[in-house]
Amino acid sequence: MTTADLPARDDRYTIFQSEMDWLRIPFWESLFSQSNGLLGTRGSFEEPMVGTRSRSLTFMAGLYNTLPDGLPELPALPDALTTRIVLCEQPFDLRRGHIRSFARWLDMKRGLLCRAVTWRDPAGHTTRLTFERFVSLADRSILAVRVRITPVDWSGPLEVEMGIRHGGDPAGGKGSHWEPPKLKSSAHGLATLETRTSQTRRPLAVAGAYAAAEQQNLIPGDALSDHCTAGQSYIFDASQGAMYTFDRFIAYMTGPPDAESPAKQARQAALAASKSGWNEQLDDHLVACAELWDRMDIEIDGPVEDQRAVRFNLFQLATLCPQPGEIVSIGPKGLSGTHYGGHIFWDTEIYMLPFFALTHPEGAKALLTYRCATLDGARRKARSNNYRGAQYAWESADTGDEACPTGWTDLATGERHRIWCGDIQDHISADVPFAIDQYVRMTGDEDFLWEQGAEVVFETARFWASRVTRNADGRFEIRDAMGPDEFHIHVDNDAFTNYMARWNLQAAANLWDHASFPKNKRKDLAAQLGLDADDVAGWREIAENLVLLYDEQTGLINQHMGFFDRPEVSPDILRITRSTAITEIIGAGMAIEGQVIKQAEVVLLQTLLDDQFTRESREANFKYYEPRTSHDSSLSVSAHAWAAATLDRIEEAYSYFRRAAYLDLNDLAGNTADGLHAGNMGGVWLTVAMGFAGLNLKGDTPAAVPALPNNWKHLRMNITFRGRKYVVDCGADGATVEER
Amino acid sequence: MTTADLPARDDRYTIFQSEMDWLRIPFWESLFSQSNGLLGTRGSFEEPMVGTRSRSLTFMAGLYNTLPDGLPELPALPDALTTRIVLCEQPFDLRRGHIRSFARWLDMKRGLLCRAVTWRDPAGHTTRLTFERFVSLADRSILAVRVRITPVDWSGPLEVEMGIRHGGDPAGGKGSHWEPPKLKSSAHGLATLETRTSQTRRPLAVAGAYAAAEQQNLIPGDALSDHCTAGQSYIFDASQGAMYTFDRFIAYMTGPPDAESPAKQARQAALAASKSGWNEQLDDHLVACAELWDRMDIEIDGPVEDQRAVRFNLFQLATLCPQPGEIVSIGPKGLSGTHYGGHIFWDTEIYMLPFFALTHPEGAKALLTYRCATLDGARRKARSNNYRGAQYAWESADTGDEACPTGWTDLATGERHRIWCGDIQDHISADVPFAIDQYVRMTGDEDFLWEQGAEVVFETARFWASRVTRNADGRFEIRDAMGPDEFHIHVDNDAFTNYMARWNLQAAANLWDHASFPKNKRKDLAAQLGLDADDVAGWREIAENLVLLYDEQTGLINQHMGFFDRPEVSPDILRITRSTAITEIIGAGMAIEGQVIKQAEVVLLQTLLDDQFTRESREANFKYYEPRTSHDSSLSVSAHAWAAATLDRIEEAYSYFRRAAYLDLNDLAGNTADGLHAGNMGGVWLTVAMGFAGLNLKGDTPAAVPALPNNWKHLRMNITFRGRKYVVDCGADGATVEER
Repeated sequence: MTTADLPARDDRYTIFQSEMDWLRIPFWESLFSQSNGLLGTRGSFEEPMVGTRSRSLTFMAGLYNTLPDGLPELPALPDALTTRIVLCEQPFDLRRGHIRSFARWLDMKRGLLCRAVTWRDPAGHTTRLTFERFVSLADRSILAVRVRITPVDWSGPLEVEMGIRHGGDPAGGKGSHWEPPKLKSSAHGLATLETRTSQTRRPLAVAGAYAAAEQQNLIPGDALSDHCTAGQSYIFDASQGAMYTFDRFIAYMTGPPDAESPAKQARQAALAASKSGWNEQLDDHLVACAELWDRMDIEIDGPVEDQRAVRFNLFQLATLCPQPGEIVSIGPKGLSGTHYGGHIFWDTEIYMLPFFALTHPEGAKALLTYRCATLDGARRKARSNNYRGAQYAWESADTGDEACPTGWTDLATGERHRIWCGDIQDHISADVPFAIDQYVRMTGDEDFLWEQGAEVVFETARFWASRVTRNADGRFEIRDAMGPDEFHIHVDNDAFTNYMARWNLQAAANLWDHASFPKNKRKDLAAQLGLDADDVAGWREIAENLVLLYDEQTGLINQHMGFFDRPEVSPDILRITRSTAITEIIGAGMAIEGQVIKQAEVVLLQTLLDDQFTRESREANFKYYEPRTSHDSSLSVSAHAWAAATLDRIEEAYSYFRRAAYLDLNDLAGNTADGLHAGNMGGVWLTVAMGFAGLNLKGDTPAAVPALPNNWKHLRMNITFRGRKYVVDCGADGATVEER
Repeated sequence: MTTADLPARDDRYTIFQSEMDWLRIPFWESLFSQSNGLLGTRGSFEEPMVGTRSRSLTFMAGLYNTLPDGLPELPALPDALTTRIVLCEQPFDLRRGHIRSFARWLDMKRGLLCRAVTWRDPAGHTTRLTFERFVSLADRSILAVRVRITPVDWSGPLEVEMGIRHGGDPAGGKGSHWEPPKLKSSAHGLATLETRTSQTRRPLAVAGAYAAAEQQNLIPGDALSDHCTAGQSYIFDASQGAMYTFDRFIAYMTGPPDAESPAKQARQAALAASKSGWNEQLDDHLVACAELWDRMDIEIDGPVEDQRAVRFNLFQLATLCPQPGEIVSIGPKGLSGTHYGGHIFWDTEIYMLPFFALTHPEGAKALLTYRCATLDGARRKARSNNYRGAQYAWESADTGDEACPTGWTDLATGERHRIWCGDIQDHISADVPFAIDQYVRMTGDEDFLWEQGAEVVFETARFWASRVTRNADGRFEIRDAMGPDEFHIHVDNDAFTNYMARWNLQAAANLWDHASFPKNKRKDLAAQLGLDADDVAGWREIAENLVLLYDEQTGLINQHMGFFDRPEVSPDILRITRSTAITEIIGAGMAIEGQVIKQAEVVLLQTLLDDQFTRESREANFKYYEPRTSHDSSLSVSAHAWAAATLDRIEEAYSYFRRAAYLDLNDLAGNTADGLHAGNMGGVWLTVAMGFAGLNLKGDTPAAVPALPNNWKHLRMNITFRGRKYVVDCGADGATVEER
């Protein structure tokens, strides 16, 4: 990037902001979030924007803290992006003076966030500033920032302060997530901040190595402004037309609870990066980024905006991928916002896992390892609710214990509302083993199954066996449950729950009898868990006799006992409220009472378990439920896109695809400012790969029966299946799948 | 109105809603508010809309209550509109079934709110329903509602319950504004609810007289559903094609604190209205409504939407007019919402008063009488702040004591923020006597001045004399003040404050010496207030030596000490944020620090006191301040429209006029859902009358020098000046003013 013109941009790989958008600062910050799976940071400006809605937040995956009387949450880390620039005595602040030119873009091919601004300060001096930033995909502790400044029509004093700012932590009045920091700023362009989470006692070290090497006569300054708590400041005389470069490499490092501070390692990492320099660090990052694309790219011969939107979803999701050895998972907002406290939901297993299993199998394994590692938390939840086995948390954090709030307070009225998800939204306990099964089928990694996965499959089956009740007819029911459709709480025999529970019980029984199950492994597990053949027979009996509200005549599935008897809500309202919060329009009471659902439930279920249903049944349920769905969850539109594509309802599928693919890019849910929607990103991939490309993974090699949108001529995607890399090439006449 | 087609509508007098607008229910409710100045109610549906954002609220002007630890506020009265309709066992609820046709309109010529709906219930029956409603301008205690029901394709049971619902009171968790009600529902179609405000002890009686006389075989029902606490219910067999009419007349009556319940009078009023019947009651209302229009109408030969918008503003403002004997005033939301607790601000004196003085002089007198009657409250405020005379409350309620909150809590963060308006926004104490002077000039009602007004003028002058401080040069300053531009707090020598204070001091001194001042009146006042010639000389001295930051060279007025030295805010931001809350975009800190103002201040000041300034100075200040104004208050756009029109900047004037005239109609401030903007309505009238028509009221008869928008050919307006009625006729060639 030069200070003159902007680089030619590749519209198929670039999210571009062409002017300062004062009204939507946090929206753009979310869109421009960057992550490497461990470290994530929002795309906020480097210079302070105090008082605006800007939220400069950096998070580390899995680094939770739990305040007294609170739930675990991912606290924001000290902010190391902050940069105070004073140009000829005028502080650089776009709210003042005049913006002569402005551009910001996320170069997804290279994983680079760039900004180029020409600014005239209130005193009339014009300056060109460019900013580049990456969260290294090669070195997961490193965040790198380059700032370049060119005085266009002036010479005079230039002051640049780069620092680490403690206090980005949004815990509000609830106490601090961090212990008071220990700071060190050396005169050699190195600064360190050491702290520790207040309750979970995890150490954090942030080291910044600062360089402004190309310049002569630099005077490193010591006194930092109150924008920074540690850092480096430079003050010198700048000359008209010269370009001044300021690089920084930040290393964030943590460790287990009560471990020693990793300050030394962080300093070494930052210094090493700084020594090797911007170009070398960037090159390593670019190589890793190219590899990322090679694993997952989808090329669309169709509208360029569809191509870009699909890539945006892939890029943002893929850069959240954990690495082997990291016991972490991905929350609904990824690392781009504070919502849900960074907790892990079913979104990961049902919406994201297939993408990772078929493009980043090691990452998929890491995600499932997180569930295996938190199995004890699920056991504790089951025990405390008088169940057996493992009842997974609706919201899970570091320990796997339930982290779902039990209620929320309406701040305007002071009223308290109960949240029941953590009590009865139990399908998560089947979703986890379902994802394990998917992973094993897609990767062929049976070792994972025997080593870790089987225990989860058995323990969740045991949970279901204790969760069901036997009714007077001798059939089994799941009473007082809650499906993905959270409008209807305390329902009996919820379709999603019962079908997935049945799947779980059958899968556990089949696994027990599986020919490849290493005998000693099974024996050890049986002894450890206290399982025997009677348990397995019980699972089969329950599975065979579990109440399923399937109507053989119509093929319709009643979403739960009595759903079909609920009053119909006006189709006028449903039409109008399909893209907004229906409960705010017609009232929560009416939504709970009526035949309106929050999000895909039966439609999703039949897509997941498609081999259990006839096409006619799937068709009938889609036609019945689709008009009654308010899409009040961001998980709903992609499920409809995927389902419609597999039913050859291509126009509807494409329409829902666009709602999913542009959900964040066009802020269709109205809350992208709070963070991106990672579950939906997985849903976009599912729609394209399983829907439009029509991937069929039942054989030993992948096949595809595509059904492309009318304005897509061609679709080409890279996947990895059972250890081999394939390219799937889809056109109007069908598909070819070739190993590469 | 028949059950067949809708009546032909007059677009120049009708606000029309052509379809159900689920997303903006409260917006339409505000727009369709109706009032007669004493009683006001929002345009919510008659049938219950529980759980939606609908807010069915009825208020009575001046009926305040003060909860412990709270401030006075206008509590919502028991809701007497509520109507439960069950059609062939299906409850009438537009959220269910299907809307076949829908129309709702406010007929401003007749003061009628109408709704016509054809609805198919979930069981398939189609019914036509029409609703008509007026708040009587002839009998100020009466609210009348007519419901007509025609089964289109069914015969069967029809149930209608009309009632009074206690509990519309939005005090939230802060306690109840009302004592537990005493209820009475007779079998003869009469129901009463009696209650009393919990602290101010004011009695309230609501009586409903219900009639369904045209029908045979009516069976009055006794058991009311839980939608009503008192009322009448009818259950009978309805026949296909027949139209069933249900009328109700509600009387709301109150009395002084601790007075007996006015239940008997309310019952008599409701019964009398019911006996005379719908047609007669409506006729009386229509006559009063026609008289209202005759006093104030403005006819525009131009775009029909401008005509309608101007009439909307006139109609909504005029129907808030108090009557002689009522010691009440008009708050910023009129009677259409709970915001500001129904408190009275400077909006009334500066923005609304001229409209009333020139169209409803008796109402203008009532508004000012409220200020005279609450003078003791202003005296108490002055005393408690160690000043003399009368310091008017920034927010005033029943007693005139300060009712401005001293802070607000950010519900999201729990942070407390101080509000300083009640402490230092003192220009209100000059605005009140300024309005008295305007009223006297416009009406010639000097009696009011001698009887009531003079005391206010003197007492506020005394306040200013104690408020100023003498600086080292011997000049007087007003330190630590706050002008209409509330972004800048604790400023010295605020332009609006100092100029208005000077006006007040001069006006008081001149009044003292006024030749027409009845000698004995002055003597009595002097004795009562302890005033003498030294006081008056002091007022003159201060007025002559008060610091005014007027630059003789440029004609610019510095808005306060140091304003011109504040940093400029980027014009890009100012341009973008001109119609939104700038503090949310750039942060409150930047707004406070920079040269950006919340609303018209110097621009308004120079329009109000136009004879004190040269046209060049007014021009210079308009050019300086207009681009720096964020219009973060709804009072700002009309002030700019008015100012621009008087400066012959017609295009700008028209552009600002449209922002003012359509502020509520098009929800330009985004908060019409919370209530209408009464101050802005007065500002629209000022723009048209004083701006475009160019009224000149300096002589004994009115004159006009019009400057019409380019697309207005003609403007014709009715006013009353010094007891005589005039029609002002403006065209491109000038104006004629004729007595009528």
